[in-house]
Amino acid sequence: MMIKVIILGGGNVAMHLAHVFIKAHEIKLVQVFNRTLTSIENLKEHTAITDNLKKIKKADIYIISVSDSAIKLVASKLKINNALVVHTSGSSSIAVLKDHKRSGVFYPLQTFSKNRKIDFSNIPLCIEATHSKDLLLLQQLAMKISKTYYHIDSEQRKKLHTAAVFVNNFVNHLYYLGGEICTKYNIESDILRPLIKETADKALDISPLDAQTGPARRGDTITFKKHLTNLTPDQQEIYKLLSHSISKTYGKKL
Amino acid sequence: MMIKVIILGGGNVAMHLAHVFIKAHEIKLVQVFNRTLTSIENLKEHTAITDNLKKIKKADIYIISVSDSAIKLVASKLKINNALVVHTSGSSSIAVLKDHKRSGVFYPLQTFSKNRKIDFSNIPLCIEATHSKDLLLLQQLAMKISKTYYHIDSEQRKKLHTAAVFVNNFVNHLYYLGGEICTKYNIESDILRPLIKETADKALDISPLDAQTGPARRGDTITFKKHLTNLTPDQQEIYKLLSHSISKTYGKKL
Repeated sequence: MMIKVIILGGGNVAMHLAHVFIKAHEIKLVQVFNRTLTSIENLKEHTAITDNLKKIKKADIYIISVSDSAIKLVASKLKINNALVVHTSGSSSIAVLKDHKRSGVFYPLQTFSKNRKIDFSNIPLCIEATHSKDLLLLQQLAMKISKTYYHIDSEQRKKLHTAAVFVNNFVNHLYYLGGEICTKYNIESDILRPLIKETADKALDISPLDAQTGPARRGDTITFKKHLTNLTPDQQEIYKLLSHSISKTYGKKL
Repeated sequence: MMIKVIILGGGNVAMHLAHVFIKAHEIKLVQVFNRTLTSIENLKEHTAITDNLKKIKKADIYIISVSDSAIKLVASKLKINNALVVHTSGSSSIAVLKDHKRSGVFYPLQTFSKNRKIDFSNIPLCIEATHSKDLLLLQQLAMKISKTYYHIDSEQRKKLHTAAVFVNNFVNHLYYLGGEICTKYNIESDILRPLIKETADKALDISPLDAQTGPARRGDTITFKKHLTNLTPDQQEIYKLLSHSISKTYGKKL
């Protein structure tokens, strides 16, 4: 079954979705809307583009993929006849679309950057809909571009988005801080690369709970105190808090 | 040139080194010592094993791979004729081996677990020696088992070990915390796997500084405050501290 889709938005998620829809079988990307045409111009040879919400065409699903604060506004200006309207936000409730009879969420749990290609087939798609028929429709859309989808309601999705901040935003920042320590002492930060890779591989392989090592897990107060002397006050705060969180998890004391 | 090596210790690093030395060309693992034979018994068919420090054989390099607090004791009991003695610790100075004329460090920067195979050729070996000739010898040993080695002195190694705690111990703990949030709200924690993988891949590809995304980087106070309401008090502390560290890095305010 061919599903007709229109995307509203020109950010990273919108652009990644547009490209994967264009390539997918049985999905027809009918149109892409954005306030400014420049960021969606390179889609022109594959689909219709517009910067005018009054010229929106017909489709089965309208995907609003804009910043959280703009979803409501775009939704209110979108005049369509009884089609399904969804957003792609991790932290917005389905309720922001309540002006539309048929609403839903199509949230790809991944970090997107402009110039980075991503294999969409591995991305978990979190779907939600006010009507069970629409949940089925989103499920069909999901299965055309990915191997995994999950039914996640708005309350769960908020929590999930927070969990994603821990394993993505915060993890990435720790990579940065580790690299900063190296650079400060004239050590090439590249030296950390194999450790970064193995840390992820190991946690995926044997679970983070079992993969944990280090002074905090051992309750090794001597190394803990030694390490603190190597750090700036800001880094010390992070070192202390995360070490205590680890030692608490394993019933140790530092 | 064949290098004769003896390992003293039976922990994870000692065992991984033993296995890679056994397989390596031009390295002869002459003997492995450990206080108790049980943990090194499976090496018996490949090399001599002993639990008696008085029965240590002759070799070019003696590698002490025991817990930090035990290095000095093992070194003091090791009676050898003018051979090179090294330890494998990230946080101990070369000075703990000062009773030996020729001392050094051979520190593999990686996380090791008992039942997990690791491709040693990708592990950066951090080497240091009191004499430049011995640094050359350690360099030769390193090149027989890995593609990369670095000259890292004791001061640098201490800092490097701290950096490793950030990108390994702390990162792994954030994986754990993210999974805990999911489990608490009946979301399969497996849903985070592709994000964990892509976060590592992206940082290795485009640098953590450029890879950073999320509310703290954007200075998105609304999402920041929303997220806090989803967390336990302990998680809130971590969320706040890391978010502020990120926003500070990018000159934003939360």
